[in-house]
Amino acid sequence: MEVRKILLREDEIPRQWYNILADIKLNPPLGLDGNPVNPEALAPVFPMNLIEQEVSAERWIDIPEEVLNIYTIWHPTPLVRAVSLEKALDTPARIYYKNESVSPPGSHKPNTAVAQAYYNKAFGIRKLTTETGAGQWGSALSFACSQLKMECKIFMVRISFDQKPYRKAMMEAWGGKCIPSPSKETKAGREALEKNPDTPGSLGIAISEAIEAAVMDSSGQTRYSLGSVLNHVMLHQTIIGLEAKKQLEMVGDYPDIIIGCAGGGSNFAGISFPFVLDKINGKEIEIFPVEPVACPTLTKAPFVYDHGDTARYTPLLPMHSLGHGFVPPPFHAGGLRYHGMSPTVSQLVAEGLMEARAVTQLDAYDAGVLAARSEGILPAPETNHALACVIEEAKKAKEEGKEKVILFNWSGHGLLDLGAYEKYFAGALQNFSLSDEYIAESEKVFKNFPKPQLLKST
Amino acid sequence: MEVRKILLREDEIPRQWYNILADIKLNPPLGLDGNPVNPEALAPVFPMNLIEQEVSAERWIDIPEEVLNIYTIWHPTPLVRAVSLEKALDTPARIYYKNESVSPPGSHKPNTAVAQAYYNKAFGIRKLTTETGAGQWGSALSFACSQLKMECKIFMVRISFDQKPYRKAMMEAWGGKCIPSPSKETKAGREALEKNPDTPGSLGIAISEAIEAAVMDSSGQTRYSLGSVLNHVMLHQTIIGLEAKKQLEMVGDYPDIIIGCAGGGSNFAGISFPFVLDKINGKEIEIFPVEPVACPTLTKAPFVYDHGDTARYTPLLPMHSLGHGFVPPPFHAGGLRYHGMSPTVSQLVAEGLMEARAVTQLDAYDAGVLAARSEGILPAPETNHALACVIEEAKKAKEEGKEKVILFNWSGHGLLDLGAYEKYFAGALQNFSLSDEYIAESEKVFKNFPKPQLLKST
Repeated sequence: MEVRKILLREDEIPRQWYNILADIKLNPPLGLDGNPVNPEALAPVFPMNLIEQEVSAERWIDIPEEVLNIYTIWHPTPLVRAVSLEKALDTPARIYYKNESVSPPGSHKPNTAVAQAYYNKAFGIRKLTTETGAGQWGSALSFACSQLKMECKIFMVRISFDQKPYRKAMMEAWGGKCIPSPSKETKAGREALEKNPDTPGSLGIAISEAIEAAVMDSSGQTRYSLGSVLNHVMLHQTIIGLEAKKQLEMVGDYPDIIIGCAGGGSNFAGISFPFVLDKINGKEIEIFPVEPVACPTLTKAPFVYDHGDTARYTPLLPMHSLGHGFVPPPFHAGGLRYHGMSPTVSQLVAEGLMEARAVTQLDAYDAGVLAARSEGILPAPETNHALACVIEEAKKAKEEGKEKVILFNWSGHGLLDLGAYEKYFAGALQNFSLSDEYIAESEKVFKNFPKPQLLKST
Repeated sequence: MEVRKILLREDEIPRQWYNILADIKLNPPLGLDGNPVNPEALAPVFPMNLIEQEVSAERWIDIPEEVLNIYTIWHPTPLVRAVSLEKALDTPARIYYKNESVSPPGSHKPNTAVAQAYYNKAFGIRKLTTETGAGQWGSALSFACSQLKMECKIFMVRISFDQKPYRKAMMEAWGGKCIPSPSKETKAGREALEKNPDTPGSLGIAISEAIEAAVMDSSGQTRYSLGSVLNHVMLHQTIIGLEAKKQLEMVGDYPDIIIGCAGGGSNFAGISFPFVLDKINGKEIEIFPVEPVACPTLTKAPFVYDHGDTARYTPLLPMHSLGHGFVPPPFHAGGLRYHGMSPTVSQLVAEGLMEARAVTQLDAYDAGVLAARSEGILPAPETNHALACVIEEAKKAKEEGKEKVILFNWSGHGLLDLGAYEKYFAGALQNFSLSDEYIAESEKVFKNFPKPQLLKST
């Protein structure tokens, strides 16, 4: 019998997260006046303990015991040798994936949702607000709040709210309150509805509503929570790569290539950052964040200062950006539609420590179906993008006759995305490409902002 | 850190299934002439190797290596100490569940789907047909056929086909062909459509279509596959209880109470049969199959000979039955709507080795939501019925101040049943009860059939 799953015991779970800020240099977030933002200015939005974590330069940060106890609901997650996919591809490559689809909400998102809920509660906060597009993040935060006995309110983009009632029911099952955005509960929402009562909503408006609902709560016990982009989110996700490293050690392997899909960057950072440390220290590893051709943040957009949100509530962040007003074409991978990228991943790409790839929608779904029919698990549309790159690299290894070791992150399952698969099987999905003019127009918004420095960490 | 998950390594997976036919006596299936059915009469429907397994009295049957290799995609499944549910109930009981929701299709069903596909393929069969109601079984067989590179055709009850497009997409993702029943492809389907072109379909018609499609295929390389009721299905499911037994041994525990929901009986047999053997040998264990009040096969219906299907294609089976034409009220737990019960489970209940329980729809969903908010996983509606009984027993243990050990089977997750949860949260689910007159009327169909003997195994 071949071994597929490499399992850690619960008492072997990592006790610390890896903080990449100890090993790379970042340009600071800036205010609109061009000066670095004072962390304390964020206090109405985030609790101070998370703000401190956001700027910490400690390399290893202890995972609180209560967070570990909740992590064990699904952690340690299996590292799986993809023996069936290897056979289907007839490749000499050894392919491993970290299976983050096994969490109750079905993705890696609760790794940070649970940590954020914990730190908020420890700071005396009783309620969290957030936005959600496709619903993965809202589900994860709702799950986390149910574990920590906190209230959770999710502003869900109206068109997704209407099209994906299952996601709302999932959030409700864990006790979260999910309402369509724009709503009448916030000034931002009311203004949006006044302008256009039939608006499908947008992530930009939903973020504005969630921040406003947190800041305006007169009890002072509500804060806002974000599921990607920020440094502390990447930090919490490193549990993925740290576990994978231990598991690979158990079978005496080490990756030549690391692959993850990248939207805001959180699952990709999770699998790769613990290995970036090795790369900085001299290991030879190729690291590929993979994005859609239709939202080419890392592969087409420059490294600039730009706002993290459409409504421009956030400070200016140093990142690859297509412009904060960028509207991607209607492809089906909700988690990969963001205009920007986390500053840490952006910095690493700008420095050349990683090399971004882009794949088309149809290549991604083709890859996902091949994976479902070999490995068995139906992948999330986001994971399909990583899979397309894995398959490409495995074929290359075959051509070159090399026993490459490929590690990738299976970020989620696609059970709540079967509507998109249905379209794929009906031949109703298409590829999108963006004209250079369209991208240039969208990027005009940051042309007067300050430029980040080209820093070098190594 | 408290330990939640008790994990076996892949090389500790059981190598044999437990066959309860070695330890209990069953009345034989009968033809309409009242004589025992000759197994070979079933050859056009099932392959001979499975027919032999159906009547085997060997206590231990080897699991083929290729089946084990596919099992490792999700097996060994975790045995989980339900520490959070225990806390929520403040009970001295130690509650453990076998988590069968981790398989790619999301339930215990592939335990037998993979085995059946394997034996069919070994017999030279290239294509399987089946029916599916809510879609769990069809998904599992489609998954199994994709692993064994076989064709799979699923007749799905039309109303479910229309209401649950996600299930169809799931079957397609694994390469299965799913069509609505009644269809124009079979005589049974065409007749049903002629009678009523707008019929919502029924499981009875879908079974007839699937059997006909198998039997009428002139290549001789197509057979029919059934997901519950039959002895070989129960056999394949015993991997659940055999693993659980090993896992409990690892923590030095043994169950006082075993609980599983029961529709056709397969997940319940899986968790309980390996312990029934101990009970026959003198161990004191309470064993509770749990069914809906709205489909009270074990709790209200007599032990009789009746057909396994509405269309009366099957032999007469000795079982508890509400009558093969029984139509349950529209409650939401697709896997618990069957009029009968597997002959093995029926026999054990008739002998008093198990004691059936029934719970209402609202108690079941209340229990499911409590479990989701403590243990994290969203349970399948079927599993909710087991959970309601677990909670009742845990509360009783608290009242009595006893440290009872409760083991139950978490048969599936509810991610594709979120529509039913949505109704629950909207207050649109209700309880159903059946009048004695309604049941008596339905049971008239078997009054002229032979009666099974009251056998005793111990």
